[in-house]
Parts: sequence; structure tokens; C-alpha cells
Amino acid sequence: MRAPPGPSASAPAPELIEAGFALEVADAPLLHAGLNLADIAHVLDLRSRSVLPEDAVRRLLTLLLEAHATPADQFGYDPVHGDPYNCRERRFVERIGDDAGWLHAGRPRREAGRVALRLLLRTLVADLVAETAGFATAVAGRAGEHAETLMPDQTYLQQAQPSTFGHYLLAFAYPALRDGERLLRGLDWVNRSPGGAGCVNGSRLLHDRTRVADLLGFPDLIEHTRDAMWQTDGLIDLLASAVSLVGNESKLAEDLEIWDSQEFGFVDLAGPYTRASVLMPQKRNPYALAITRGATGVLIGRLSGFLAVVKSPSARSDNLIFAYGEVPRALELARKVTSLMAGVVATLEVHAERMREVLLAGFSQATDLAEYVMQTCEVDYRTAYLVVGRAAGDAGRHGLRGVDLTGELLDQAATALLGHPLGLAGRDLGEVLDPEAIVRTRLAPGGAAPAIVREMAAGCLRAAERLREEAERQRLAFRQAEDDLLTQAREVARG
Amino acid sequence: MRAPPGPSASAPAPELIEAGFALEVADAPLLHAGLNLADIAHVLDLRSRSVLPEDAVRRLLTLLLEAHATPADQFGYDPVHGDPYNCRERRFVERIGDDAGWLHAGRPRREAGRVALRLLLRTLVADLVAETAGFATAVAGRAGEHAETLMPDQTYLQQAQPSTFGHYLLAFAYPALRDGERLLRGLDWVNRSPGGAGCVNGSRLLHDRTRVADLLGFPDLIEHTRDAMWQTDGLIDLLASAVSLVGNESKLAEDLEIWDSQEFGFVDLAGPYTRASVLMPQKRNPYALAITRGATGVLIGRLSGFLAVVKSPSARSDNLIFAYGEVPRALELARKVTSLMAGVVATLEVHAERMREVLLAGFSQATDLAEYVMQTCEVDYRTAYLVVGRAAGDAGRHGLRGVDLTGELLDQAATALLGHPLGLAGRDLGEVLDPEAIVRTRLAPGGAAPAIVREMAAGCLRAAERLREEAERQRLAFRQAEDDLLTQAREVARG
Amino acid sequence: MRAPPGPSASAPAPELIEAGFALEVADAPLLHAGLNLADIAHVLDLRSRSVLPEDAVRRLLTLLLEAHATPADQFGYDPVHGDPYNCRERRFVERIGDDAGWLHAGRPRREAGRVALRLLLRTLVADLVAETAGFATAVAGRAGEHAETLMPDQTYLQQAQPSTFGHYLLAFAYPALRDGERLLRGLDWVNRSPGGAGCVNGSRLLHDRTRVADLLGFPDLIEHTRDAMWQTDGLIDLLASAVSLVGNESKLAEDLEIWDSQEFGFVDLAGPYTRASVLMPQKRNPYALAITRGATGVLIGRLSGFLAVVKSPSARSDNLIFAYGEVPRALELARKVTSLMAGVVATLEVHAERMREVLLAGFSQATDLAEYVMQTCEVDYRTAYLVVGRAAGDAGRHGLRGVDLTGELLDQAATALLGHPLGLAGRDLGEVLDPEAIVRTRLAPGGAAPAIVREMAAGCLRAAERLREEAERQRLAFRQAEDDLLTQAREVARG
Amino acid sequence: MRAPPGPSASAPAPELIEAGFALEVADAPLLHAGLNLADIAHVLDLRSRSVLPEDAVRRLLTLLLEAHATPADQFGYDPVHGDPYNCRERRFVERIGDDAGWLHAGRPRREAGRVALRLLLRTLVADLVAETAGFATAVAGRAGEHAETLMPDQTYLQQAQPSTFGHYLLAFAYPALRDGERLLRGLDWVNRSPGGAGCVNGSRLLHDRTRVADLLGFPDLIEHTRDAMWQTDGLIDLLASAVSLVGNESKLAEDLEIWDSQEFGFVDLAGPYTRASVLMPQKRNPYALAITRGATGVLIGRLSGFLAVVKSPSARSDNLIFAYGEVPRALELARKVTSLMAGVVATLEVHAERMREVLLAGFSQATDLAEYVMQTCEVDYRTAYLVVGRAAGDAGRHGLRGVDLTGELLDQAATALLGHPLGLAGRDLGEVLDPEAIVRTRLAPGGAAPAIVREMAAGCLRAAERLREEAERQRLAFRQAEDDLLTQAREVARG
Repeated sequence: MRAPPGPSASAPAPELIEAGFALEVADAPLLHAGLNLADIAHVLDLRSRSVLPEDAVRRLLTLLLEAHATPADQFGYDPVHGDPYNCRERRFVERIGDDAGWLHAGRPRREAGRVALRLLLRTLVADLVAETAGFATAVAGRAGEHAETLMPDQTYLQQAQPSTFGHYLLAFAYPALRDGERLLRGLDWVNRSPGGAGCVNGSRLLHDRTRVADLLGFPDLIEHTRDAMWQTDGLIDLLASAVSLVGNESKLAEDLEIWDSQEFGFVDLAGPYTRASVLMPQKRNPYALAITRGATGVLIGRLSGFLAVVKSPSARSDNLIFAYGEVPRALELARKVTSLMAGVVATLEVHAERMREVLLAGFSQATDLAEYVMQTCEVDYRTAYLVVGRAAGDAGRHGLRGVDLTGELLDQAATALLGHPLGLAGRDLGEVLDPEAIVRTRLAPGGAAPAIVREMAAGCLRAAERLREEAERQRLAFRQAEDDLLTQAREVARG
Repeated sequence: MRAPPGPSASAPAPELIEAGFALEVADAPLLHAGLNLADIAHVLDLRSRSVLPEDAVRRLLTLLLEAHATPADQFGYDPVHGDPYNCRERRFVERIGDDAGWLHAGRPRREAGRVALRLLLRTLVADLVAETAGFATAVAGRAGEHAETLMPDQTYLQQAQPSTFGHYLLAFAYPALRDGERLLRGLDWVNRSPGGAGCVNGSRLLHDRTRVADLLGFPDLIEHTRDAMWQTDGLIDLLASAVSLVGNESKLAEDLEIWDSQEFGFVDLAGPYTRASVLMPQKRNPYALAITRGATGVLIGRLSGFLAVVKSPSARSDNLIFAYGEVPRALELARKVTSLMAGVVATLEVHAERMREVLLAGFSQATDLAEYVMQTCEVDYRTAYLVVGRAAGDAGRHGLRGVDLTGELLDQAATALLGHPLGLAGRDLGEVLDPEAIVRTRLAPGGAAPAIVREMAAGCLRAAERLREEAERQRLAFRQAEDDLLTQAREVARG
Repeated sequence: MRAPPGPSASAPAPELIEAGFALEVADAPLLHAGLNLADIAHVLDLRSRSVLPEDAVRRLLTLLLEAHATPADQFGYDPVHGDPYNCRERRFVERIGDDAGWLHAGRPRREAGRVALRLLLRTLVADLVAETAGFATAVAGRAGEHAETLMPDQTYLQQAQPSTFGHYLLAFAYPALRDGERLLRGLDWVNRSPGGAGCVNGSRLLHDRTRVADLLGFPDLIEHTRDAMWQTDGLIDLLASAVSLVGNESKLAEDLEIWDSQEFGFVDLAGPYTRASVLMPQKRNPYALAITRGATGVLIGRLSGFLAVVKSPSARSDNLIFAYGEVPRALELARKVTSLMAGVVATLEVHAERMREVLLAGFSQATDLAEYVMQTCEVDYRTAYLVVGRAAGDAGRHGLRGVDLTGELLDQAATALLGHPLGLAGRDLGEVLDPEAIVRTRLAPGGAAPAIVREMAAGCLRAAERLREEAERQRLAFRQAEDDLLTQAREVARG
Repeated sequence: MRAPPGPSASAPAPELIEAGFALEVADAPLLHAGLNLADIAHVLDLRSRSVLPEDAVRRLLTLLLEAHATPADQFGYDPVHGDPYNCRERRFVERIGDDAGWLHAGRPRREAGRVALRLLLRTLVADLVAETAGFATAVAGRAGEHAETLMPDQTYLQQAQPSTFGHYLLAFAYPALRDGERLLRGLDWVNRSPGGAGCVNGSRLLHDRTRVADLLGFPDLIEHTRDAMWQTDGLIDLLASAVSLVGNESKLAEDLEIWDSQEFGFVDLAGPYTRASVLMPQKRNPYALAITRGATGVLIGRLSGFLAVVKSPSARSDNLIFAYGEVPRALELARKVTSLMAGVVATLEVHAERMREVLLAGFSQATDLAEYVMQTCEVDYRTAYLVVGRAAGDAGRHGLRGVDLTGELLDQAATALLGHPLGLAGRDLGEVLDPEAIVRTRLAPGGAAPAIVREMAAGCLRAAERLREEAERQRLAFRQAEDDLLTQAREVARG
């Protein structure tokens, strides 16, 4: 015979408290403020529909305002009493008895949680966007400074072509700006009201869902009520953008770790971003870079894990119970890392002399030289490539560098390969072998020529500023809405 | 002593062929068309800059047009000769000798690959958007049909409140539409030209990057050339949207699997979406649903894996080498599953009578009844909830159903709990206990009332149609651009 | 010009404190005990080599014993002072001045952390093994009870063949026992001493690495010192086994969630594992099952994330910095969930009557019937299958059940399909259609016949007991070793 | 009204063919041989129970032997006809009519698939173990060669202490050997017979499950039949071990990529493991390393994805449908990468002179110097550390190297820091500053002293040999068992 309907009379099992309620209560500090605001707005909404007596309204609001003034860690969240919502219910009944019971009219626990999560997330996302703008600003600023700092660009960590540190660095601004835009669009998903969804298909008590949305400063409703309660697509989108953002920063961190080695010597992290070994007196470890790389791995796991969590049938509570803690913490971690890497970049010591020295020691002019051969000797590129490749190899074996190549050496290589010279002996290859001159040829849009880099850097700075302003505008709006709600609650509470 | 610069003279190791080149060659069928188009556009671009002799142009274009007419599996891609680009180089030299060597002027292998990937992806993404629209259309269409099909909505798979199958089903249209929009934005990222980036910082040969973009039908450039070569953020974004999309479909599939059981009996999958057991004669297995759920798991792994791949320093070839196969295949899988679930929904048999029977057998009216008690007996919600909960439990123990509850039973429960009845005896609770009447009260935006559901369904159908049209418009533009390019190439080739 | 060697003089940047040190300090409560023990053992080891003066030894040990008696949250870990090791160093210098400086002789921060992690993990793993044994015990115990409780086994959630709840349930004991064995092997990896590795290639100060291993109760050394400092393979192995274990429990939880629905009605979770809705008076939600499923998703992400973290060059600090918190917390979560599911199973209400009712309402005898037809009518299995499938379909259309099938119905089907009957009319099919009789035929090893199930259950109980005993034996050994170390330290400290 | 029981009469939907059957048919080449062997063994098993007529036996075996001699791509697997099993059924009926129908007696499709997967995996795993042994052999062999090749060991890519390339390299052998052992244990899980499980709880037809196990060369049964059909824990374990193995190789690859740069110049990959740029004539890219790193990311995703796939209720077909392709392909990829890295290591050019030059240019002696100061000046380690750190910084600022430090410089630093010198002026620090002498002090087990490294290398070679032999022994046994089965089938078929 099946159990009759209705809640169980039994106390929760200790394992349930430990595995379930404790897990949810650990997230109470994240959700506390939002739960208070959600409850306040719900009471005001019920009041506007005359659902509950006016003195119950006043007592409830007074209680909730007091809760809002109480830090989460002093509020009495304790898994022994259930999840955070149960803890609140218990405390409210202790304080004002049956009047507390009106709070649950027309709204399940889950709706309060959903509202609280969105109130939290909208601020966290706006903060992350602002930090993203900060990172892009730092990167673009330094890129502009180093528009003429010559450096070998690398693929496979092999020297490829002469470029500049400015051009290199700026390549990290663009993805950050794109992820910043993605996060702003994610914020648009977050900043919508799930309120008034009832259990899942609406409530008979509250027909005007815009009211609670207005009270909480949500510019829009999530239309479909079941969708409002259970949607997770936007959380995936936010996490993916955050992982992408931090992944871009991690690539920079990994490059800098290599370049900060004694062997490369291209850069030094500023002291405040390093830490000392406690055993090895000579060491100064680029700790900030390790944190960035590791945090990226962690965030990859947070996204993977959340995707695994939501792989379930629909309307399963675990989807959101685990989102309450996992998603905000992941966004917070992304924000911290983004801020850290902004600092690293802003304060980085760049060793332009060492970069130039390394560049001159190599053969990264070879492509430009082959193009020169192709264009002036009437041979196809592949032939020119083979000639230059051979000449470079021969030169390297004799301890010569790229800048030391001569028409004679090229003609020797051509003769060996093609059976005849290309008439290069005696030519002045100074311009075509000079890394600085090479970089100046990169004049197409997006190229490494200093003027182009400076122009792009300026564009990125403007884009970052727009991003920052939008984040700031939204943060102000959130704060204003919440202040207005509290003010209104105080007025009603006073009667 | 270090090796001198220049390519190695040695043949590749067999393990390198097996682990590296074979892996890349397995993706050649995906990239073949795009590589041909990229090469054709590059030759036309070089020609416009007078980089190569006109007869070399004609021979190259003739060769490339022929390659484009050759299916990938007959082209001669073979890992023994290297990656697909090497195989092409080899074949081209075999055919036209040194003239083939002009093709590499001003452009590395990677740029050809990047262009080819984008040409492939833009079509795949547009296809996926179109299928997403198809899924949303199927869902919204069936939801409209079932706006009055009563059903218990569930959380934790426990009956929660009376709702309709239409309202339930429609909750899957909204996330699909949002992911469709995200994919469209992802398409905007894809459909930009990386062309003219040279190795990484531009080329001295090609100063007008818009030309190759125009030839390939890309409406925009990716500005920064290093970013153009190495960006992966948009690929993460596309994969995340695809996983989110399919995850939504998987939730529906998991629900339907449960509802298709003999015990639930809510729905039957249409025969073409099932398969028989070869051992058990009575069985008809909802195979389509298992495929959908499993594919979702696979896609979660494809995204996690790609994120792990791109966790590396910058400008590492593996990032894209592995993207070439992994990303298109993942998008293809998402498209197939989306199309499958559209078919499942469009043809689903819905057993309305069984749904109603189950609804009437339960107690899902309890919330509405408690709200009625609260509103008519001047008690707070929690008190009303306790009274109704107790009455339901008592009734259940005596084999009664929710619709059998009476004012007398409620008063008995109230007396037991509160010490006094609530004056409910004798009341006609018919309306408040009637699931159909309850559903009609869900009139707020997004609620389950039939008129509301029909209106939302119509809105979703319109949104799906807009999505489909935009996908179609873009697909046409891609095809047009590619046709135009081939036409132009043919003209030049003819001389 | 590069920075000179040596630690930076600058204070850490606030972002570094927030993103780096705070992250590490959050793990201090996990590592505190182990760090104290590691430090104590290191001092005793240094002492045995006469590296430091005897009074410094005594002062250090007194200080460390006091630290060990101080709870982590009162110890003064504060990210402003760096990571936990820095915080300790600072406190120790504050207390005993320069004598604290001896502690760092011959040992980097990382070695202390590695030791502390292993001391923590060995207990956590042993605890997890013990809980795994508890889960297997609960499952096998209930399986034995229900060796005769008839039930339809399902694939695709479609009724497949008659089976028993006992046979079904026991299928979860075996994977748990295997994962328990895997965890024990993982424990063997954990319980080895990394001590004495110096920076990474050994230390000139400490030539006998067995001494510190003995002091800490590690039965073996990790031989190669660089491996000792940086190995992560065993952590991957432990996480994978934990995910596998919890994934098995999650499958059971998902099944039970379905079976606990009103529509199935096979089981009821005991009250202490459910929670009530605060809106819906009739509901009792199987909360424990949602926690288990969600935790499984989280753990999948923890493993994925850790794998992404360790995808880096070798000897990168982030690998372990992030392991310190992620791995123990993941194992703790696995333990909690395992304990929870043991409780769920031990207290589950099983509705045998409902299971039998559902079984009798279906056609799960069809396979056995087809085998009977094959064996008695001289037709191949596929033919028999088609006949039975058709007869079942016809019967179903007329509202008949599997037990209602007759020889006549089968002959009608045969005639329709084959053109002739099979001579089945008039046969007594009672035995072949009786689910109980069918189950009794499953006598092969591992089958569902009650005697076989009882025997397997007994075997699983014995295996679980062995697992539990081994976990307990090891836990005792760990505690004994740590007590002995403290005793020895106290003696030396007293002088 | 629900659909009646029995298979659907409808043809599969095109989307189902594309998304479902095509996916399974793509794995047919992997499973073909195993399906043939499974079918042959099943027929022999049925025959031993006299289930089917002897001439049907002969016809079936003849047919199956012919199938086994037919390559998968010529067998006629085509998704239009369903999954591989359906395709086989169809072909068999085409060839021998109703006699083909006996094949399905007592065994579902799934059992055939499970057997085929294990037959495939046991060989793949043994192959992977053998390659793992090969990698460990290459690593240990080169480590022994370079036991005296001085090199700075690094953490955070900062020079840490003097060590040797041999000691460094050997740190990759140990994890590989451990993962090899894990794979062997995984092989033990694989190499068990699921045969005779019937649908899921046994079959009435086949009571002796050992017979089919013997025929297929499985030394053991999987006892519980439901477990036999659905267990996935061992697949997780195998994938995790493979990811761990390849992750270790990837760390080495990432290190080598850095060391192969012009700036480091520590090593050169042998030509056969590199590839040339087609644009840049001077470049030789360490392509093998990029493949290894990327494959590691892919494999992380394969494991994550498989874990997400199996997060489902129990007995869900997708769990294994997706395992059939994903798991073998992942193991194959791991094998290829392992073989590749064995080749890279075996042929690597090591630039000992450059390593020594870099070592001498730095300050990696600082720890040993501080220990010397501590031991000879009666100061604690932290004090000695501060003195040496300061002296190193001062020296660095004056362009001096670690080997240039003198007692005078140390005394100056001591005076500045402590107010008094330490009496170091005039001391001969040659021995303590000599990297070679330092390395000779690392005599503890696992340390970098050449004799110790050589001894460890020899031990690793022996362990790798044992691993290889065990893999080989098992491969031979598999081949023998399969040959025996075919021989027996041929004899019976001949009659």
C-alpha cells in the first residue's frame, strides 16, 4: 500500500541533512540578500491583491527588513532545520507566529530561490563585464605603448616572423571584448523576472506578473511560467562565456610564464604578482600566472559539471539546487582571475632589448626574403621558399644569422637546388632583412605596422570603455531598484 | 649544437603519420570544398595584385576548379603525404609543376584551413538554426493542439498541480528559440573573413584584405590578424549553444521515455521512431529518445574536450587542428538530434484520457484548495496548507481522491490540528477541486489557461518562422557567393 | 634589463590576495592537521640528522604541538599574509623568532603540502571505502529480502521480462564493490611518503627518506623524488573511481524517482529521505534522490576540471594548488552521497503488490512463450517471435493481458503469418505464462531464480564486510601512527 | 488508447536512420569481428543444449564463418536496414531463410554487442599496455644515458636547483608504469564473459554460462546477469587510465615544446617528428608535440562525455550504444599518441652543452649555499636563506652568476641584513657552488645523483619489460582462443 499524500511526519535523516540541507545552507550567504528582497516584493504583491490582512503585511515587512539588515552568518541558517528556505520559515514563525504563514501564499520555495539567484547573478555578471573591460583596457593600453617594440612572433613556439609586442598583446583584447559582449547578452537573459509563476503554471492569486517584476527592477518578464521556473540555457551561456574569457587570459598567462623564464627573458612579472620560494633564495615565482591557468581548468570543470547536472528529465530540482552555488562561484572566480590578469598586464616589465636581440639572432625574415626573391627573380613562391630555406640552413650551420644573409648565399643555394643562380649576388638586402622595415610593411587592416596597431589599440580602448559604462549603468539601476523596494517596504511597514 | 634552421629532410615517422597526418586527413572530406574555394579566392587575390604571371593564374585556376569538381574521396588525400594541405600541394605540383608553387605566396597553410573551416561552419550553423526552428515549430504546433489536454504537472516526478499537455510542451519551445538566436549570433562570428592575415601579422603582398573577403562572400573582416588566425571563442560559443539546445531536447526525451512506459501510458512514440527488440516479441523501444539522451552526453564531452584542447599557450596549432573535425561533427550531431526530436514531437500519440484519469486519481488540487481555505476562512496560507495536507492524507488512507474531498473532511482536519473547524462543512467545493476549472484560473501571462497557451504557441510559431527565414536567407547568400566565385574563376581560367 | 634573482620586496597585489592566497587559505582547514604533522615529522627528521640545535627542536615541537591543538579557524590563516604555509611561517616567527627559521631546512613549501594532502586523503579514502561497503551491505541485504518479490524488469523503461526486485537491486551491489576495490588500490597510491624529496631532486640534508615516512605511518616511499612531488595520476584514479561509484548510485536514484511516482507506485522513500513542498500540501518529494543525481553531475565536473587543470607542462604549481581543495571535497561529497543512498535503500518501502499487479497487466512473458513455441513446435526463434508478437498485439487490442494468451490465439496468429497453425490450440500455457514460474527457470549463475539471488546476496554481504574491515584496519593504522608521532613529539619537546 | 504490444509495423523515419542507425553502423567496422565470434559461440552453445536442428547449426556456422571472412566494409552494413545487428539479421535471412531465425534464441541483440565490445577492447587494451611499456622503455633508456647531463630543474619554469636531464626524464616513466598497471587491471575487468545473460536476468535455454565463456576465451564470468549487461564502471576506469597516461605524455610534450624553442635550445626533435611550414622557409615545427597535447584535450572530453552519457537511469541502451564507438576510439587514440611520444623520446637530440651553459648562468645553487651557511654559521635556515637571497640579488645586479658568489659577498649581505658578517669571507665555496658536485649530493632514494638515476632507470626498464610481456602473453591467449573457436566452428560446419 502506498503512503498517503501529504508531507512526511518524520525528521530528516542525518545523512540527508549532511548531503542535502548542508549543501544548500552553504549557499545561503550567496542567496540571503536576494531571498529577503524576493520575500519583500512578494508580500507587497500579495498586498496589492488584498490577499492578506494589513497588519500581517506590516509585521511581515518589519520582519523581512530586519532579516535584510542581518548578515547571513547571524541569521540562523542551519541544516538541522532544512534548506535556507525552511530555516527562514522556521525563524519567521518563531518571531511572528501564524502571520508568517501568509508568506507562502501563491509561491513555492523554488520561485523565491529563482528570484534570489537572478538578483545575485545580475550583479555578478555586471561586475564581471566591468572587469573584462578593465582587462581589455590594460591590454590595449600596453599594446599601444609597445607598438614599436620588435619581437619575433611564434607558432609552435618557433620564431615565425618579425612582429611587435604591441601587435601580439592586442590579440588578447579582441576576444575579451567579444566575451564581454556575450556576457552582456547573458545579463539580458538573467535580468528578467520569473516571479508570479506559481508552482509552475501560474497562480490563481496573482494575475499581474509585472508588478513583482517592477518591484525587483526586472525590465521584463520571462513569459512562459514553466520556462521561468526551470530554464538553464542562460546559465550555460554565462558559464561558457566566462570560461572562454578566462581561457583567453590563460593563454596570455602561459605565454608570459614562458617569456618570464631566464632563458627567454622577454618579460618580468611585477613583484606584487609573484611569490617567493621558501626554500630557494634566488626564486621569484610568477604565481599569478599559475593561478590563472589553474582557475581556467577549474572553470572548464564547472561548466562540464553543470552540463552534466542539467542532463536530466525536465523540472528536476537538482538542476537549480546545484546551480545556486556553482554558477555564482564560477562567475566570481572568473572575475577574480580577470582582475588579476589586468593587474599583471598593467604592471608587466617588458624587456624590449632582449626581444630585439633574440629576433636578430634568428631567421624570421625568411618569408619576406622569399617573397622578395619571388617578386624580383621571376620564380614561383615554392621555388623561392626552397632557395631561402636552403640558404638559411647553410648560414645557420656557419653561425650566421638571418640579417647576415647575402645575395651570394642565396645564389649558392639556388645553384645547388635549381642548377643556376638567380642573379641575387651583389644586391643590397638590408631593407628586406631588417625586422623593423618588415614590420612597417604590415599595413593591411589588422597588421603589425605601428600605426595600424596604435589605431586598433585606440579602438579597443573605446570599445572597452563602452562595455564598462554599460556595466556600470546596469549596476546602478540594480542598486536603485533594490533601494526603492526597501524604501517602499519601510513605508508600508510603518503603516 | 642545435639543428640549423629550415625544414627537416627526413621522411615523417610512421607514428607521426598514424597519430597526426591520418587524424588530419580524416577531416579532409569536411574541409575539401572550403580549401578549394579558399585557394581559388587566394589566386584571384594574388592576381589582382599582379603577384603571379597570367598563365600561371589560368593553370592554377583550371587545376583548382577541377579539384573542386572532384569528390574528396577521389582526390588523393593520403596521410603518407602529410596533412590535407600537403596532399594538395603534392597533387598540384604533380599536375602543373612549378606553377603550383605560386599558390603559397603570402599565405600559410593555416590561413587556408581557417577559411575552409568558416566556409563549412557557416553552412552547418545555418542548417542547425533551420532545424532548431523546425523543432520549435513542431513543439509549438502540438502545444496549440493540446491547450486543453489536462495533465498533472510534476516536480520530482510527483504530481504537483493540474496543468495541460500544451502548457507543458510549450516550455521546450522557448529555450530552443533562445538557443536558435544564440546560434545566429554565433553565425555572425563565423561569417567573417580571416583572409589576408599572412603568417599572423599580415603580409607584405596583400594590402587589401577586403578583396578576398568579398570573393568568399564574407560580409566582414576579422580585424586583428593574429586574432583572425587563432581565435576560438566563437567556437566555444557555438558548441555551448548546441549543447544547450540538445540538452533541452534531451529533457523532453527523458520525460517522454517515462511517459511512454506502460505504467504512465501518457504517450506513445510513433512507430517510425521506435525499434523492436529482437528477443522480446512484445517490445517496441523508444529508440529515438535514447539516441537523443546519449548524443547529449557525447556533446557535453565534445565541448569539455574542446575547452581542454584550447587550454594551452597562444598560437598553438593543436587548437585548430583538433577543431577542424571536432566542431563540425558536433554541430552535425546536434542538427541530426534536433531533426529527430522534431519528428518525434510532430508524430507523438498523446493519450489525453489516460492523463486525465491519472490527474483525477490524485490530489493535485491541494494548492488551490488551500488558497481557497486561506481566502474564505481568514487563516494564513501555512495554516490552510496544514489543514489541507492533513485532510488529503486522511482521504488517501481511505482510498479517496482529491476530487472526493469535502468541507466535512477539511473541518475534521482543522479540528484535529487547530482545535476548531473552519466552517467548511456543507460548502460546494466542486469548482475549486475541478482540474479544468483550476487550469482556467491560470490567466496571468505565461500561465496554463488554454487561451494563454494558444496565444503563446502562436507567438512561438512566428518566432520560429523568423528564425527559419533568417537561416534560409543566409544559406542562399552563401551559395550565391560561392557560385559567383566559381563563375569568376571559370572566366579567368578561360582567359 | 631583467630583474635580479631573489624574492620581490613588494607586497602582494590585492588581486593576487583575492584570487590566489584566499583560494589557498580556503583550503587551510582541510590541510591544517596534516601540515602540523608534516612539520612535526620534519623537525624530528632534521633532529635525527643533528641539523638544528636541541633547544630549537624543543621550541619548534612545542609550538607545533600547540598549533595542532588549535582549530584551523582560530589559527590565524589569513590571505593577507599569503598562503597557508606563509601564514604558518609568520605565526611561528612571531612566537619563537629565528628558531622558527629552522623549519624550512631541506624542505620546500610544496613538500609540506604534499604530505598534508596525503595524510588527509588517506583518511578520506578509507572513509569512502567504508561507506561504499555500507551501501553494498544495504543493497545486498534488501536484495536478499526481496528475492521473491516479482517485478517486470525493464529496458528503455519498457517492460521486458519477469524478474524480481531482489535481482534488480543486487545489480547495484557489484559495481559498488568493484569501485570499493578500486578505491582501496587508490589508497595504496595515496599512502606513500613523498617526504625527503627536497625541492624536486632530493636534498643534501636528509639522506634517509624512510625516517620521515615511518614517522608519518607511510608504509612505503614514492621512489623518484620529482615524481613524488608532482604525480597526479593517483588523484585522477581516485576521482574516477568516486565518480563511477556515485554514478552507479545515481542510476539507482533515478530509477527510484520514477518508481516513487504515483503512476508507477513501486516504492516509497521513507519519510526521513523526503521533503515537503512549502506550497503544495499533498506533496512529499524524494529529495534524497535529486541530491544524489545532482551530486553526480557535480562530480563529473570535478573530474573533468581536474583533468583540465593538470593539462599543463610538468612541475606546475597550479596542478596541486587546485588539487588541495578540489580532490578532498569531491571525495567528501562522494562519501556523503554514498551514505545517503545507503540510508535510502535500507529504509525503502517496497510495494510488492503493485509490482506484481503491473507485471500481470503486461506481456513480459512473451520471450519465454516464444522460446516455448520454438522448442515445442519445431520452428526457429524468429518465426516463434513473430507469431507471439502478433498474438500479443491482437490480444492487447482486445484488452487481454499476457497471462490471458491461449494456444488458440497463437494459432490464429500463426495462421495469419505462416498460413497454418502450429498446433497450440488446447495447450495449457499456465506454467509458461506464469511470471513466478518463469523466474524460477533463471537458474544459471547470476540469474533471477530466488535461490540464486539469495546466494549472490550472501556473497556480496561477505565481500562488503571484507571491504569494511580493510577500511577500518587502515583507519586504525593511520590514527595509531599519528598518535605515535604526537607522543614522540611530546616526549622530545619535554626534553 | 495506448498502442498494443509488439513491434511497430512502420518503416523507420529518415531522421532516425540518420541520427540513430547511421551512428551505430559507423561503429560496425569496430564490432564486426566480435559480432561474428559472438554469434558463432552462441550457435555452438545452443547446439550443445540441442536447441536447434543440426542442419540449421551447420548452415548457420557456414554463414557466420563466411561473414567472418568478409571485411566489414563489404558486408552490407547500411543504416537503411537498421543497426549493425539488424543488418546482419537481414543478410542472414536473405542467405539461409528461416534457419537464420535460430540465432536469436535465448539472446538479445545487446548481449551480442556486449560480447563483441569486450573482444575488441581486450585486444585494444593489451595493445595500449604494450605501447605504454614501450614509452616507459624509451624514457628510461634515455634517462640512463643522461644520468650525468646537468640541467637546471624548474618549477614555474624558473630555474630551481641543479639536476640532470636523466633525473628529469625518468619522472615520466613512473606514472606511465603505474597507468600501465591500471590498464592491466582494467583488462581483467574487460576480459570476462557477459554471455548467457539473456535479456537481463538469465535465460531458460542456457543454464551453463561457462560454456560460451570458454568458447570465447574469457577466463571468468561476470556473475550477476543484469550487471553483465549494463556495467560501465570498467569503461570509466579504462578511459580514466588512458587519459592519465596520455596526460603524463602531454606534460613531457609541453616541456619539450618549450625546450625546443630557439630561446631555450635544450633539445631538438628529430626530423621525422617535425613538419615544415609551407610559408616560412626557416621553420621546422615540433608537430608531434602539438598532436600529443591536442589529443590529450580530446581524450579529456571523451571521458567527460562518457560520464555524462552514463548519467542516466539504469539499463538505458544509450549507455552502451555510445560506448561501442567512443571507448575503442579513445583507447586507439591513446595508443597512437603513446607510440608517437615513445618515438619522440627515443630520437630526441639533447643539447647538453646548452643546458650546462644555462645552468651556469643562473643561481640555482642558492638552496645548497643557504644550507651550507646554515650548517657552518650556526644560523637557522630562514636567516641563511635571507642572506643568500640578498647576496644573489646583489650579484645579479652586477652581472655576476651563481658560481661567482663569494664569502665576501655573503658577508656583505649578512651585514646589511643582520648587522654583522657570518665569517664567510675567504671560504672556498667552489664545491658548494658547483652544480655537478651538488647533484652528487642527491644520494637519497629517488635523488638525482647519477648512480641513483642509473639504478632507477634499470628498475624502470625491468618493470616495463614485465608489463610488455604480460600484454604480449594476453594478446597471444586472445588470438589462440579465437583461432580455436573458428577451428571448432569449421569442424562442426563440415559436419
